[in-house]
Amino acid sequence: MELIYLDNAATTSIFPEVVLVMQETLKENYGNPSSVHAVGRTAKAKVESARKYIAQQLGAQPQEIIFTSGGTEGDNTILQGAVQYLGVKHIISSPIEHHAVLHPLTHMAAQGLITLHMVKVLPNGFPDMHDLDRLLTSIPDKKLVSLMHINNEVGSMIDLNAVGDLCHQHNALFHSDAVQSIGHYQLQLGELPLDFAVASAHKFHGPKGVGFMYVRKKTGLGGLLLGGAQERGMRAGTEAVHNIVGMEEALRMSYQTLDEDTAKLKELKSYCLSALQEALPGTVFNGACYDMNLSTHTLVNARLPFDEKKAQLLTFHLDLQGICCSKGSACQSGSESGSHVLQTLLSPNENKFPSLRFSFAATNTKDEIDKLVSVLAAYAKS
Amino acid sequence: MELIYLDNAATTSIFPEVVLVMQETLKENYGNPSSVHAVGRTAKAKVESARKYIAQQLGAQPQEIIFTSGGTEGDNTILQGAVQYLGVKHIISSPIEHHAVLHPLTHMAAQGLITLHMVKVLPNGFPDMHDLDRLLTSIPDKKLVSLMHINNEVGSMIDLNAVGDLCHQHNALFHSDAVQSIGHYQLQLGELPLDFAVASAHKFHGPKGVGFMYVRKKTGLGGLLLGGAQERGMRAGTEAVHNIVGMEEALRMSYQTLDEDTAKLKELKSYCLSALQEALPGTVFNGACYDMNLSTHTLVNARLPFDEKKAQLLTFHLDLQGICCSKGSACQSGSESGSHVLQTLLSPNENKFPSLRFSFAATNTKDEIDKLVSVLAAYAKS
Repeated sequence: MELIYLDNAATTSIFPEVVLVMQETLKENYGNPSSVHAVGRTAKAKVESARKYIAQQLGAQPQEIIFTSGGTEGDNTILQGAVQYLGVKHIISSPIEHHAVLHPLTHMAAQGLITLHMVKVLPNGFPDMHDLDRLLTSIPDKKLVSLMHINNEVGSMIDLNAVGDLCHQHNALFHSDAVQSIGHYQLQLGELPLDFAVASAHKFHGPKGVGFMYVRKKTGLGGLLLGGAQERGMRAGTEAVHNIVGMEEALRMSYQTLDEDTAKLKELKSYCLSALQEALPGTVFNGACYDMNLSTHTLVNARLPFDEKKAQLLTFHLDLQGICCSKGSACQSGSESGSHVLQTLLSPNENKFPSLRFSFAATNTKDEIDKLVSVLAAYAKS
Repeated sequence: MELIYLDNAATTSIFPEVVLVMQETLKENYGNPSSVHAVGRTAKAKVESARKYIAQQLGAQPQEIIFTSGGTEGDNTILQGAVQYLGVKHIISSPIEHHAVLHPLTHMAAQGLITLHMVKVLPNGFPDMHDLDRLLTSIPDKKLVSLMHINNEVGSMIDLNAVGDLCHQHNALFHSDAVQSIGHYQLQLGELPLDFAVASAHKFHGPKGVGFMYVRKKTGLGGLLLGGAQERGMRAGTEAVHNIVGMEEALRMSYQTLDEDTAKLKELKSYCLSALQEALPGTVFNGACYDMNLSTHTLVNARLPFDEKKAQLLTFHLDLQGICCSKGSACQSGSESGSHVLQTLLSPNENKFPSLRFSFAATNTKDEIDKLVSVLAAYAKS
């Protein structure tokens, strides 16, 4: 059975060209970039060339790009580091952040290292800016705000300029998990009122196990993983050269075809929204994902008009039909506790209906959407 | 010019078969192991099968093997975690540990989170067991001992049974960085008096950016990188499936030919020791690396009879001749501060002579040693 993969917000397939450069690097450039001899220097050059390209592409300076093992490490390094090195005592975040942000925060709060403040979130998945202003005003001490750029479950895309400006007016540091946007939107990090951001290669057709942090220079942030002098002391550990080179290539390819891919994805999302509503009247789109000015064109989160019994077997049924999608973030797919994002955004009555996230790559087709919709329609009638 | 790579303790070339399985995994198994659909389950199966193999190979249980981004992350997670989760207030270590151990320890000590005790180290690179006993006896509180199995610079190999038994007699937890031994020696972790250990794939012909921790079950250790529920909460972040599968294959291949490789390496090391002493009378071997009962057969750390002027250009000269070796650990190769290991083990007068580490893989040959020795001999006469 041909699988239909509509879970690109969880992870993406890897561009064949990325596999190729990784394979070459694994074979040819096995040196340790910290070694000063010829074999080490070649590896070092690969790493630094990737850093330079990524920085340039994102309007940052090379020394502001720190390679990590992925988004989770980036978020943890920045949040734990802000407390350890920058004297941050108060952190403002939201209940719909990724667990890679929420869990270090609740952990530090439980240890008494920070006071954690949760900004109110509107039903469309945006932070209540008045509440954010109120919180920022009420905290005189050193503070940091962590709000993700694009919500990974419902796709709401916050205005980094508006949020960042507000943070900086109140002398708060601003961190944004940009795992769902870097590679899909052309961010110029250096021009944004951002202190920290985080990206992950496997969300834009690169390898798993690698990502980067943007750390604005002179913030004074230190490392969480301590040891060797790699990454200017911000992240110890031998660099995964093949993964870094693969990430560079994936980002290059993503941005090379960004305009045409964006057009394709917008059309695909529009098509999906209409087709779902037509075939399954009563379908509601969570957050603001019906509006591409407010949400990413890469995903749809749909609340489907199925009764409790049908809801229970829904994902199982789709899986049997070869359709790969998810209830929310993959990181909690295994758990039965449900989505913390939808629990925040929806009323208990709304949340009785099953919600599914369909997330797209530019290679997805209208035929695949047709198949998805026909499977759902048939299930509704079964 | 044909390069002669004698820096295998810094990193190793990757087995072609490892590149092959990684390449296949990148192409075919791009799923997120946390996704519950078909594509996710296939990736999950790969990860769990690797865990099972590695556990079995090392006499551990699968749930005791936690995948990480490498040795540094493993050391940091264990050391920082012991303080955060296990109530450890005192840590005993040695001044010749890897920076991935020393730096988190000095950082935590500076923050007032722990009292750090340094055991005396004998000139041959072994901890003074009487001093260790004295330290353990003097600390009534919850404590942990961190001593690496094989020293990465001078190769001294501590007796894990003797050290671990002593730790456990004193109710101390015992962690050992086994980055230089796993893949080169057949350890049965479950049978050793060890609570924690750390390995890194790129030291045994696997990929960079992946390793694992051994965490004895029921220790209660928690994660440093928090977020998703991967690795049973011990290490959040999407698993780098291709790297994990590559590590599994590298370990399988290393252990399949372990006996013949060990025989080869012992002969090669003996040959290197004799050839150096013969060609350069006055050469001294640091630590205990002249004795393969006390040190690993994978490396030689030689103190060479060159005057200060010749010493300064020595590594530069070897590099020009295509010989890759290092002054100490790669992680500090770039720095000019010199080896903290040799500063501990040698007197200032001894340390005036240049020391070099030559570290071997089973693919190195006597011809390469001959070339190394002739280049050094010619340099001595130049």
